[in-house]
Amino acid sequence: MPRTIRVINPNSSVTVTQGIDAALAPLRLDGGPAITCHTLHDAPPGIQSEADIIKVLPQLAAFIHAHESDSSAFVIGCFSDPGLAMAREASAHPVLGIGESGMMSALIQGQRAGVIAIQPASIPRHLRSWGAMGVTSRIAGERALGLDVEALADEQRTWDRLLTVGRQLRDEDQADVLILGCAGMPHYQHSLSQALDMPVVEPCRAATGMALTAACLAMQD
Amino acid sequence: MPRTIRVINPNSSVTVTQGIDAALAPLRLDGGPAITCHTLHDAPPGIQSEADIIKVLPQLAAFIHAHESDSSAFVIGCFSDPGLAMAREASAHPVLGIGESGMMSALIQGQRAGVIAIQPASIPRHLRSWGAMGVTSRIAGERALGLDVEALADEQRTWDRLLTVGRQLRDEDQADVLILGCAGMPHYQHSLSQALDMPVVEPCRAATGMALTAACLAMQD
Amino acid sequence: MPRTIRVINPNSSVTVTQGIDAALAPLRLDGGPAITCHTLHDAPPGIQSEADIIKVLPQLAAFIHAHESDSSAFVIGCFSDPGLAMAREASAHPVLGIGESGMMSALIQGQRAGVIAIQPASIPRHLRSWGAMGVTSRIAGERALGLDVEALADEQRTWDRLLTVGRQLRDEDQADVLILGCAGMPHYQHSLSQALDMPVVEPCRAATGMALTAACLAMQD
Amino acid sequence: MPRTIRVINPNSSVTVTQGIDAALAPLRLDGGPAITCHTLHDAPPGIQSEADIIKVLPQLAAFIHAHESDSSAFVIGCFSDPGLAMAREASAHPVLGIGESGMMSALIQGQRAGVIAIQPASIPRHLRSWGAMGVTSRIAGERALGLDVEALADEQRTWDRLLTVGRQLRDEDQADVLILGCAGMPHYQHSLSQALDMPVVEPCRAATGMALTAACLAMQD
Amino acid sequence: MPRTIRVINPNSSVTVTQGIDAALAPLRLDGGPAITCHTLHDAPPGIQSEADIIKVLPQLAAFIHAHESDSSAFVIGCFSDPGLAMAREASAHPVLGIGESGMMSALIQGQRAGVIAIQPASIPRHLRSWGAMGVTSRIAGERALGLDVEALADEQRTWDRLLTVGRQLRDEDQADVLILGCAGMPHYQHSLSQALDMPVVEPCRAATGMALTAACLAMQD
Amino acid sequence: MPRTIRVINPNSSVTVTQGIDAALAPLRLDGGPAITCHTLHDAPPGIQSEADIIKVLPQLAAFIHAHESDSSAFVIGCFSDPGLAMAREASAHPVLGIGESGMMSALIQGQRAGVIAIQPASIPRHLRSWGAMGVTSRIAGERALGLDVEALADEQRTWDRLLTVGRQLRDEDQADVLILGCAGMPHYQHSLSQALDMPVVEPCRAATGMALTAACLAMQD
Repeated sequence: MPRTIRVINPNSSVTVTQGIDAALAPLRLDGGPAITCHTLHDAPPGIQSEADIIKVLPQLAAFIHAHESDSSAFVIGCFSDPGLAMAREASAHPVLGIGESGMMSALIQGQRAGVIAIQPASIPRHLRSWGAMGVTSRIAGERALGLDVEALADEQRTWDRLLTVGRQLRDEDQADVLILGCAGMPHYQHSLSQALDMPVVEPCRAATGMALTAACLAMQD
Repeated sequence: MPRTIRVINPNSSVTVTQGIDAALAPLRLDGGPAITCHTLHDAPPGIQSEADIIKVLPQLAAFIHAHESDSSAFVIGCFSDPGLAMAREASAHPVLGIGESGMMSALIQGQRAGVIAIQPASIPRHLRSWGAMGVTSRIAGERALGLDVEALADEQRTWDRLLTVGRQLRDEDQADVLILGCAGMPHYQHSLSQALDMPVVEPCRAATGMALTAACLAMQD
Repeated sequence: MPRTIRVINPNSSVTVTQGIDAALAPLRLDGGPAITCHTLHDAPPGIQSEADIIKVLPQLAAFIHAHESDSSAFVIGCFSDPGLAMAREASAHPVLGIGESGMMSALIQGQRAGVIAIQPASIPRHLRSWGAMGVTSRIAGERALGLDVEALADEQRTWDRLLTVGRQLRDEDQADVLILGCAGMPHYQHSLSQALDMPVVEPCRAATGMALTAACLAMQD
Repeated sequence: MPRTIRVINPNSSVTVTQGIDAALAPLRLDGGPAITCHTLHDAPPGIQSEADIIKVLPQLAAFIHAHESDSSAFVIGCFSDPGLAMAREASAHPVLGIGESGMMSALIQGQRAGVIAIQPASIPRHLRSWGAMGVTSRIAGERALGLDVEALADEQRTWDRLLTVGRQLRDEDQADVLILGCAGMPHYQHSLSQALDMPVVEPCRAATGMALTAACLAMQD
Repeated sequence: MPRTIRVINPNSSVTVTQGIDAALAPLRLDGGPAITCHTLHDAPPGIQSEADIIKVLPQLAAFIHAHESDSSAFVIGCFSDPGLAMAREASAHPVLGIGESGMMSALIQGQRAGVIAIQPASIPRHLRSWGAMGVTSRIAGERALGLDVEALADEQRTWDRLLTVGRQLRDEDQADVLILGCAGMPHYQHSLSQALDMPVVEPCRAATGMALTAACLAMQD
Repeated sequence: MPRTIRVINPNSSVTVTQGIDAALAPLRLDGGPAITCHTLHDAPPGIQSEADIIKVLPQLAAFIHAHESDSSAFVIGCFSDPGLAMAREASAHPVLGIGESGMMSALIQGQRAGVIAIQPASIPRHLRSWGAMGVTSRIAGERALGLDVEALADEQRTWDRLLTVGRQLRDEDQADVLILGCAGMPHYQHSLSQALDMPVVEPCRAATGMALTAACLAMQD
């Protein structure tokens, strides 16, 4: 009997967790592993700084330790992939980071990836990640919405910025695939892809899909 | 109702197709897409040269054209990814190449990928692919078994070479993940991973897993 | 006695072949190899898609096979270098692709190369080539004229776009050498170089020059 | 009056802290900033795993917060640069990581850097760092001593391994500068450089030197 | 007793030498090495061309030869690092180039470096240097003030261009650290950093700081 | 009437100049430019150090100045490309360096280039060049013969080392094309290529061939 893929939203926003949960519905297949989404309730409400990342790590470690025996894979649902190396060291199961998985998925869907960050301050952190992944030459550009948590709650305003920034990445930076650089925007994926006529990667889906494959294959061996 | 993922073995070896078919069993889930494997019967018995690649392309194009309407994704089951760009241009569905997907999958499972080719002559072709993917700095090395089709039929001899070459990639080239650079060796994956104590990527499984994700997500939108 | 360098225009446009032929006049030297230009008459009128490339490959292979014994080198006169690896495998003579040769020639004439493509759809294919060549860091940018075959026949309109796109590559992307990303524009090379005050590489000339060197040196050994 | 450069040994080994402290003597100049070395007493005895890194981060954050007002620069004395981005976000002063500073210092002293790690498990983590720094093409290789804490206490055995691994990096990997990939080996720097006739970078000294420059320049402005 | 760090201004402008000399005051510490600045009086008034570089080299070699015995380190105070490899071959002491040191220093202060050149013609030369250093992927961009020697003497005009070009590098090219690509502008460093709210590296200070560290450490051994 | 390609041997060894001269015979075509080889008689007998390079530059500049009006192209016949940027700045004609041209020519003949240097001390200098050219990822390796001028005069000994080093580059480093990293070995090119069954680039021929093309094309415009 297939065990469970656990998708961890490493902030305390239940709304974000619910959004991820809804977005993963198409990957829940009869006969496939269960896919559950979890909120780290004592974590910060959002992860926007290096300090936030540090706060999250012990709870993430505790979650993985607690669920090692009843899980088949873990997904860390923050685009900065906090604790990814730690989690892989700690767990015998596949661990996917949505930043890494989102990027690898994008590289299969286009030749030049454009990344939409929420805040400008995250971009250098992401650039270090792309460098660590060795894929810098495939990045068309990364641009930020520049919206804080409050502004993100305004869906029209967020949508307008997504369109503007997506067009800049496509037309000025020559991206031919976009990545939503945040776990909280799956509901914009389809519309943005339609509006800009190009593939848009939603990283939680990308990572959970990879976890699904890994979990299925691990069951066999 | 989910349509079918079609995995195309672009050579005429039914044995290879059967091996792929068996290997993909864990990815066939109730409620998920069907996964069928197809032999290009008029293709060469194996794809070991640039001339072989050219022979295969028109048949590949014809297959995709014929199955566009009853498929949800295509997988091209040759490690050199013949016709990948053509197929993506021709089809509205996701098209996965096992070379590209195998590499992206490996980059998530280790920091330095070692590739096991069948013949030395394939290595420059693969190196051009890694360059086109922009991931050259992640390649620990690529080494060939140096076995022809006849020798590959000798399982003990093939296993001995897999062990030898895998150890060289691990110990001399510092690979921490291996990729089987051929569609015809899924049955060695598990044993090789056990024997060398490191992840081994079987590229047909990697690509079909990505096709599974893509097919499921496409159904939703 | 010097044998012949054969420049293959892999589309069926005799006008393009004639333009290449005229452009190569300065490389026809007494005592040097003959340089003849050939049209693949059953090929598409232009190569603008992956499907076009596939159509061209068998004819290209046949041409090389037919002329192996009476040639000293082959030049494939399409900027996407279709069949280059195949032709090199098939022939004992030097085979030059105008995309590869054009790029290598540009890298000697400037530090940052700007590429002028005809259609935007070709750019990802070219980017994969630059990656496979390992020279991505030397590319200032690639921009497309965005003109179809009919529009290209309008010389004034083509010239205006060449000027506009060349200036963008020079002034916005900081290219200090340009490459005409197509076999059909040798007659613009000199004027564009004068107008923009920078070197402009015409790839058929670049590749045929390399074939000339290779043919002369091979005769000696 | 110059304030203090604080060098943080983020493990609880007082011996290591004392070794660093002694090694920094030449950088303590009259009229220059004080240089003090600090042990994180509640940290693990050594940092050899991702789990160790996580344990260290909150204490590191607390130390920086506590000393922000009486410091002019911070040095994080662990070769994996734990918490470097966090510390830079938290402090208005320069923060140097010995991994990053050691590498940048080596790149000025040779063309190809060879890194001596303590444990093989650290190498992938370091490789991600070199990728994030964008300097992968300058790395000749990284090899591990493969000694645990107990074995490292045996100075003869450690010296023998340093010689062996240093020679491999120099002779097989063509390194022309070495980096000691650990804060605990400054007393071997001079002898190893003499024995192998090549520059050897001790990363605590490299980072503290950079902190010295930064602190002096900041005082002026 | 500490010997002297000699900073060589390899042009004949005494004004530039004096500017460097003043800028290095904070690095002159009691108990530290003396830091003296020297003009190559027979050199060109500025180094703006390849021809200028060649003129400077014999004098540079002569200076190093003459001062080898009474120096502890040399700094070559021209951003193109003329004669750096020669000087390192000729001297047993550390030799720092302000171009190389400025870049390495910037890579520690930001993720993407923006370089402010004086003349456009210097940019290709600098790009070759960044390539030789293997750090091309960390360069956000390089832009030139486009001011000749006379115009540089007009401080208001120079300041206006510094602001304009710095803003372009920050806002259009996404640089998060700037480098003054010339030895003659230390007095603008602090104001530019304040005005643009980002770190600005003055390369003579960066290189002399590295020389200070090297000189102090060499004294010990 | 075609003017002359001047190949400059920037050392004082007439034997080397004569060897180059003989090697270029196949590129002297009726109706093509004359190709003459020149010795810089006041230069060092060989260029093996950075000091040697500096000595050569003023004479090289003088030669180019003296022959600007009666030349159609210049070739600098030293593998370290001394003065290449200077010469390009000084001359209105094409200037080719045998290091750069040899590398670009090799990249067309194989996927991974192996370089045979004379002395180990040249390798870091060459590596900086490959970096400046942006082609580091295409270099399989560079190894030195380790023979001084006297030893190089012993042809049997030189041949033995060429075979040994060539085999190491081919078999251990996986080069599929070799470059003779010196102007003085054209007479070994053919035999080495035969013995190792792989292409071997002789850089004087490669550069002069590129000069031939450039000279012919320039005559037309």
